This record gives sequence, C-alpha cells and structure tokens, in this order.
Amino acid sequence: MNISIIAFDEFTDIDLFLPWDLLKRVNAPNWNVQILGEQSYHTSKSGLTIPMHGNITLANSSDVVLFTSGPATRQKMKDTQYLSHFQLDPEKQMIGSMCTGALLLAAQGLLKGKQATTYPTAKKLLEGFGVTVVEKPFVVEGNVATAAGCLAAQNLVGWVIEKLLGTQVKETVLKSILPVGEGLSFD
Amino acid sequence: MNISIIAFDEFTDIDLFLPWDLLKRVNAPNWNVQILGEQSYHTSKSGLTIPMHGNITLANSSDVVLFTSGPATRQKMKDTQYLSHFQLDPEKQMIGSMCTGALLLAAQGLLKGKQATTYPTAKKLLEGFGVTVVEKPFVVEGNVATAAGCLAAQNLVGWVIEKLLGTQVKETVLKSILPVGEGLSFD
Repeated sequence: MNISIIAFDEFTDIDLFLPWDLLKRVNAPNWNVQILGEQSYHTSKSGLTIPMHGNITLANSSDVVLFTSGPATRQKMKDTQYLSHFQLDPEKQMIGSMCTGALLLAAQGLLKGKQATTYPTAKKLLEGFGVTVVEKPFVVEGNVATAAGCLAAQNLVGWVIEKLLGTQVKETVLKSILPVGEGLSFD
Repeated sequence: MNISIIAFDEFTDIDLFLPWDLLKRVNAPNWNVQILGEQSYHTSKSGLTIPMHGNITLANSSDVVLFTSGPATRQKMKDTQYLSHFQLDPEKQMIGSMCTGALLLAAQGLLKGKQATTYPTAKKLLEGFGVTVVEKPFVVEGNVATAAGCLAAQNLVGWVIEKLLGTQVKETVLKSILPVGEGLSFD
C-alpha cells in the first residue's frame, strides 16, 4: 500500500507534517508513506528544508495521493507542464487535498461539477474550476476528498485509514494525538 | 525576541512541527523562532531529517525555550553531559515542554514539587522526579508550562504568544489552523 503526499516549495508546514506523522503511526504490513516532489528537497513556507522520498510521477502508481497546500498552488494550477506529470485515476486511487491543494485537484479535472472545500482565501479560485465550494472541514465525493483548515488533516487521514484498514485502526491513530484529559488518558 | 525549540533525534514530528508552524505565523518585529539541536541535522521518529538553526546552548540566551518530545527523552533525562549545556532561568525565561519533553524539564530541576503533565507512558518516570503529574492537556507553574498530547501544542503556543504579544495575536494565530466551518469561515 503506497500512500503519497505531494509537496512543493513553500508548502504549508502543518498541512504536510500533520498528515505525514498521522499516516506514519499506522502499524500495518506493506504500509508505505512517502513525500513526493519535483526536486530532491523542498522548503516549507516557514523555511524548513526537507528531503523528498521520490519524484511526483510515483503518484501515478500510488494507492493514495494527497496534495498538500501552500502559495505555490496558485501558480501550479496553471502550470500545464507540472500538471502533465499526473495521470491520476479516482476509479483506482484515493485522491485528496489539504486546503489550497484542492486547486491542484480541480486543475486536473477531478472536482468538476462536484462539491469541495478549500482554504477561505482560495474559495473564488476553486469556484472558477466549476466546483461547488462548501464551508465544511471535509468533503468526500467518491474516491476524491478535500479537507480545509490545517486541523482537518485528521478528517482526511481518518478517511484514508478507515477505508483501507477499518474503523479501529483509524480511531487508535487519531486518538494518539489528542490532548491528555481530552481524549488521551493516563489509564 | 528569541523563541527556541529544542530537538534531538527521533523527535515526535507533530510535537516539533505544530509549535514551529504556529509560532512562525506570528507577524511581529524581532520575532525569531529557531530549532536547536546538538548536531546540524536531526531526524524525526518518522524518519524526516531537518536542519537545525543552531546549537542547544543558544537556549540559554533565549526568551522562550520549548522542549519537544520523543523516545530519546528517556535517555537524555539521565545524560548529565547533555543536561549540562542548559542553564535555564525561569525567573527570566519562559520554559515549556511537549509530551515527554517534561522529563527534560524535570531533569533540570524545573518541576520539583510542582504540577505538570506529560504523555501517559511517561507519567511514572516524571513522578520519579518529585513532580505531581496531573491528567490535563496543559499546566502552568509560573514561567514553566507543560503540555501533553500533540494537539495541546495549541495551548503551549497560545500561552507563549498571549504572554508576549497579547490575546488578540494569540487568537488570530490559533484560529488560522482551525477546520473550515469549525472556527475558520469563508467570510
């Protein structure tokens, strides 16, 4: 099971690192989580440079593909060369996005005529792709899901884990990051 | 204003990246957030290698020092050479921890006879330092604060920002990561 997170320069830190850590907490055979980019390294909006695990073209053979967010999505949604690397198939793959990552799903025609959510500042841009943008943390349309607001990463990751490994694994993973006394207990 | 986050190998990803991103969202003059370690690079529990901004000794001249968490805290709490690098002063500095980072505060004598919180698996170890461990997401004792459960990073960061820059800045920063429709709105 290959789960790919798509990154690029100026990615929003939490929108990459929260899904990443949550997905890496899954203890299941052949569960491979990887961060993919165009270069060997990408630097976050806050200035952290991290190594990629592979090129974005690996997304095409992944079981799950999640697009992170950041200012660059506004350029990349118009970058036909960048977009041409992706041949994603929602019939065979689970595809999702955090915040403005929805613009990249829309630019690939994955949200046309569908409902989706995105970061407030990208609402109009997303509507420009013929998407019905709704004020919800998480929207699922078949095998395509959009989450918005960093903490909605929990919904997106929960959707992936529940669908692939069941409710119990999902709940165990999501519970592990809750505050002590508010989900996590000493018993 | 220098805010230092202390990292080490096998740090818990969210416990570093969530405070980091939140603190970097502050837009204030001379607001410098840095990640400090013993080496130039440290690798997270999930396998991400990131560059440090400086050596841990810079913590001693920082206004705020926050310890992240991870399995290594169990060794480092007994590592007198490691601990000797820190000469922190809660009279002059704000000092805090995420999850098992509380063990490092305790090992420096910063929690003796005080209340604190930590990750459930470290409760007994923390009690071994003469700390009263309470099942709460966040505990403040003067200028020393402990948070537990990854999402309690919001409490820890909120405490720092509110104390240094006021309630309004704190609320703006914390709101920016809430899910759409559950704190963040399209208006």
